[in-house]
Amino acid sequence: MPYGYNGKILRINLFTSDVKVEEPGEKFFRKYLGGRGIISYFLLKEIPKGADPLGKENKIIFSTSIATGAPVPGFGRHSIGAKSPLTGFYGESESGGFWGPELKFAGFEAIIVEGNSPKPVYISIKNEKVEIKDAAHLWGKETGDADDLIKQELEDKKVKTLIIGPAGENLVRFSGIAHDLTHYHGRTGMGAVMGSKNLKAVVVRGTNKLEFANSEKLREIARFFAQNFKNNADNHGQHNHGTSDYYFGAQAAGSLPTKNFTTGYFDELDYDADELHAKLKIRNDGCYACPVRCKQVFASEEPYKIDPKYGGPEFETLAAFGSLCGVSDMFAGPKAHELCNRLGLDTVSTGVVISFAMECYEKGIITKEDLDGLELTYGNTEAMLKMVEMISSRKGFGDILAEGAKRAAEKIGKGAQKYAMHVKGQEFAMAEPRAKFGVGLGYAVSPTGADHLQHEHDGAFDPALTGYSHSTDDSNVFLRALYPMGLLDTVPSLSLGGEKVQLFTYLQHYWSLFNSLDICIFVFEPVRTLKVNHLVDIIAAVTGWDTSLFELMKTGERATTLARSFNIKHGLTREDDNLPDRLFSGLEGGVLKGAKMDREEFEKSLTLYYEMMGWDRKNGVPLEGKLFELGIGWVNKKLR
Amino acid sequence: MPYGYNGKILRINLFTSDVKVEEPGEKFFRKYLGGRGIISYFLLKEIPKGADPLGKENKIIFSTSIATGAPVPGFGRHSIGAKSPLTGFYGESESGGFWGPELKFAGFEAIIVEGNSPKPVYISIKNEKVEIKDAAHLWGKETGDADDLIKQELEDKKVKTLIIGPAGENLVRFSGIAHDLTHYHGRTGMGAVMGSKNLKAVVVRGTNKLEFANSEKLREIARFFAQNFKNNADNHGQHNHGTSDYYFGAQAAGSLPTKNFTTGYFDELDYDADELHAKLKIRNDGCYACPVRCKQVFASEEPYKIDPKYGGPEFETLAAFGSLCGVSDMFAGPKAHELCNRLGLDTVSTGVVISFAMECYEKGIITKEDLDGLELTYGNTEAMLKMVEMISSRKGFGDILAEGAKRAAEKIGKGAQKYAMHVKGQEFAMAEPRAKFGVGLGYAVSPTGADHLQHEHDGAFDPALTGYSHSTDDSNVFLRALYPMGLLDTVPSLSLGGEKVQLFTYLQHYWSLFNSLDICIFVFEPVRTLKVNHLVDIIAAVTGWDTSLFELMKTGERATTLARSFNIKHGLTREDDNLPDRLFSGLEGGVLKGAKMDREEFEKSLTLYYEMMGWDRKNGVPLEGKLFELGIGWVNKKLR
Repeated sequence: MPYGYNGKILRINLFTSDVKVEEPGEKFFRKYLGGRGIISYFLLKEIPKGADPLGKENKIIFSTSIATGAPVPGFGRHSIGAKSPLTGFYGESESGGFWGPELKFAGFEAIIVEGNSPKPVYISIKNEKVEIKDAAHLWGKETGDADDLIKQELEDKKVKTLIIGPAGENLVRFSGIAHDLTHYHGRTGMGAVMGSKNLKAVVVRGTNKLEFANSEKLREIARFFAQNFKNNADNHGQHNHGTSDYYFGAQAAGSLPTKNFTTGYFDELDYDADELHAKLKIRNDGCYACPVRCKQVFASEEPYKIDPKYGGPEFETLAAFGSLCGVSDMFAGPKAHELCNRLGLDTVSTGVVISFAMECYEKGIITKEDLDGLELTYGNTEAMLKMVEMISSRKGFGDILAEGAKRAAEKIGKGAQKYAMHVKGQEFAMAEPRAKFGVGLGYAVSPTGADHLQHEHDGAFDPALTGYSHSTDDSNVFLRALYPMGLLDTVPSLSLGGEKVQLFTYLQHYWSLFNSLDICIFVFEPVRTLKVNHLVDIIAAVTGWDTSLFELMKTGERATTLARSFNIKHGLTREDDNLPDRLFSGLEGGVLKGAKMDREEFEKSLTLYYEMMGWDRKNGVPLEGKLFELGIGWVNKKLR
Repeated sequence: MPYGYNGKILRINLFTSDVKVEEPGEKFFRKYLGGRGIISYFLLKEIPKGADPLGKENKIIFSTSIATGAPVPGFGRHSIGAKSPLTGFYGESESGGFWGPELKFAGFEAIIVEGNSPKPVYISIKNEKVEIKDAAHLWGKETGDADDLIKQELEDKKVKTLIIGPAGENLVRFSGIAHDLTHYHGRTGMGAVMGSKNLKAVVVRGTNKLEFANSEKLREIARFFAQNFKNNADNHGQHNHGTSDYYFGAQAAGSLPTKNFTTGYFDELDYDADELHAKLKIRNDGCYACPVRCKQVFASEEPYKIDPKYGGPEFETLAAFGSLCGVSDMFAGPKAHELCNRLGLDTVSTGVVISFAMECYEKGIITKEDLDGLELTYGNTEAMLKMVEMISSRKGFGDILAEGAKRAAEKIGKGAQKYAMHVKGQEFAMAEPRAKFGVGLGYAVSPTGADHLQHEHDGAFDPALTGYSHSTDDSNVFLRALYPMGLLDTVPSLSLGGEKVQLFTYLQHYWSLFNSLDICIFVFEPVRTLKVNHLVDIIAAVTGWDTSLFELMKTGERATTLARSFNIKHGLTREDDNLPDRLFSGLEGGVLKGAKMDREEFEKSLTLYYEMMGWDRKNGVPLEGKLFELGIGWVNKKLR
């Protein structure tokens, strides 16, 4: 057995009930690693052109990486991918937690699920024992109830669960997959793909041990992390407040997505992080092998009952159900979070489609009558929470919004399209591109559509945002973090152009590597406690490979290119790498009032990005030479 | 002062006698490193389009790197570059020895020499003291005599010298520069550039110490090397025989350039390495901080007097004045070596132009009359040696050959062009492309024209050549050497196509890095004792930089792209990346009889290479996006 991984991929056909184990060999795993690398490889090879994302030709892949389960912070994540019902292109969503390491301990790297089951089922894996079990009694259940029932049935409270809620069963195009209820695969509608396959859950229990090439080195790095993460200024009080601090930080910076991205400042925000946490937080939760425990568990009885078994909201959720919908009620976001997790919805897309509907309502494009009497104004908490349930159950107008902002806008007509904040059909995440133009480029070219985990987006490398613009001391962590990549100069946030696109492209390779290794950006983002070269050391210590940052960056680039190739095969053109018009007109309020992107600069930068990626200038089709350069010459046959 | 280097570049104007010191700062040195990186940077910025390589607009740059002088084997080289009088494109030539470290100890990284001196001069540097000294008494002198005179005049036997011979003074287009007489800058005609500037020599003496960030680590690596280099099978008995073993190895492999590249097997070769060394070798010589001492000093009284002060021939010289000219006399190559070093000629180009003339003679294209009675047949040792002198002095037909094979062929006419084995005007080195198609691609795209130090060319990564083709044990050093670059598969020598071009391109980046760091391929070629990641460790230990193989590979790619950009600026098109027709017809003898390249496959691979490099498909012009990707957006202004 190689170090760090088992080398086994499970292939389960839900139609025939066949279960197979494939062992593609060490070079395969070294080339594709896991997560995005493995998912994009199989999706590109196996999903036929024109396949319906909710049809039997789609496949859904659950993948860890060669290093998942290493006893180092950040190595506890896993990815789920399929052709996305939201975008029609490459779909993928990651989460932290424990499921990934558990699958490794069971003896597998990944699971490819193909075919549609004729009746509701769930997959149970206990070490080498793989079962397709009846799920008739689970169908229609909220995630929490299904979780309880599965654990009772298996008589195992330690089993790690991936479960869809009613939203997934109802094929809501942005439905997600709950992992142990508190972690979540939100983006790209993977819940609907499980729903379309009558697959309620995938649960796993593993009791084997992984062997590592250099366990002492791993322990040393874990110790270094434990001793240092709290001292790193950029860890943002992760343990104390998780990502919720971003909500208030973005407000101060004028970059808080507010009222469907019309402004970057939410006038009515009248509480702060301390107050939020004092009123709602009951404890911390965390992920495999990580001492940070950055997840904030919220509970409340009033004004809404919030059940702590669903964990608590991240920044994205607080913003999507707060400022974005003009909702100042501090309990509303946490309640919406709980609702989405129970029902199986992506909080980001759900918040955006509701804020979209709110803007349409405010502008008279949709009316109270369309909404069965609901007054869907900005700030109407009750209507917002009601709409979450209507989307999940596809009741009334919820059925239209359940299609996602893009399709809903097309259905609504009357100019609604211009208020649908999406790329490729996937709704914006909670980073305002007009505050960080690189985020705009990231939304435009991310293979999954607008997404917050596909590229750097917190502006940490902009001296203007980090306050180091006039510092002559470039020994500070921010400016030096990217030196190992040869990125020696910072670039202003409010810019595009060649230098920004270089920074963006290298970091996209790196983020793609994160999603191929299934590791956490909060641990490995370059400015954090563990540096770029720590990652190289860890992969070497896990696997025993004589590897390098060059090899690793290339695996990141390779995975992005595979996902791009999947998209090209499935019909993507330059038109799909577009941004909504709103980004090219000024933000309406806050310290960045008036900030806007420039269409011409954006188009020019998009072309520069294509050129940097080795894609053709016109539609971003990977060039024959580039595919060979990345060691994936086989992809040429899929594209030309 | 930063670790490892001084950060100072000398700029000397020979016309005005101005001497300036420039300090471009740490980021400049980190981005361009030295050697090719620094030379291509300044040549591209400063040499105007259309400049005559032998005119006053040309500049000649002598460069070390940020790590030259580190107490580790392989770090004792330096580079000399200018617009080449041989090719009209980017010119550069490297050598080992001691001059580079000496310049560093004097306090400088590089010297830019501009303007032409009205009268013969030489440059003397002793630490910070820089003098332009009269060289009237040195002009016309052979290198050895000039070396003696300079040392007498300076009363310093330890001064390190770069000296041109009569060939350089006579502007022979492939004249070189001798370094301490035994080392040599052969390729691309740098001697003629010095000659055109009336610059006889550049001598240097430095007594300062360099500081390193982690001297203990450097000592550790040096110890590792000393303990292991002899055990590495691929070190080819370097200490005992130097590169001369290649001569006999290539003969056995059928890849020995013979009779102007008509065949790969020299029928009349009737001695072996042991006999050669028994008869000629008197001692070993070596380079700075290197325990290998791979240089073989030859001496002889009969049949020719061979003066050991000029060292001894490498493989390239033995072949160029042996099999290539059909000369089986084992003393001829060593004698020609001595002659070329004395007179200041590149042994490679000299051998090739003579073998070209021999083929023309054999075919009746040139006659005894053209040659003042010389019977220039294959195998005529006396005529060959005579022609070396005629070229140096530009006497008779030597004046035509002194222009290089390309120009000579044009002048001769009568179809002579097809026997001129050159790319971009520079003569082939002694690797037969039909035995390793990657060498053909390397000759075609090397910025300096056909050259042996710009790309991998010994076929070590082809299992067919290394004898590992059927081995299932890929733990062996050959197959694993490139793993840190993500190159997991070997590729057959007699092939081009996507996989080969990927291997070639990555290794070209690495070789370009070698020439930017000014390090020795015999130490750092991936299959040697020090591995790819040792190099990263060394650069980190020298400079204290948190660097990586990614950053270093990008500096290699950047330097290649700068040199390419220089060539584009100076008129290069795809036509210049061409190979002689001979390579597309079969080798005439030896075990590879009949082996040939395929024109269509070559053209397709050339396009794939352009695409991999981020250059346009048509003429290989670096794309705007690629230049930004490499952090050299400024180059766009030079190209478009």
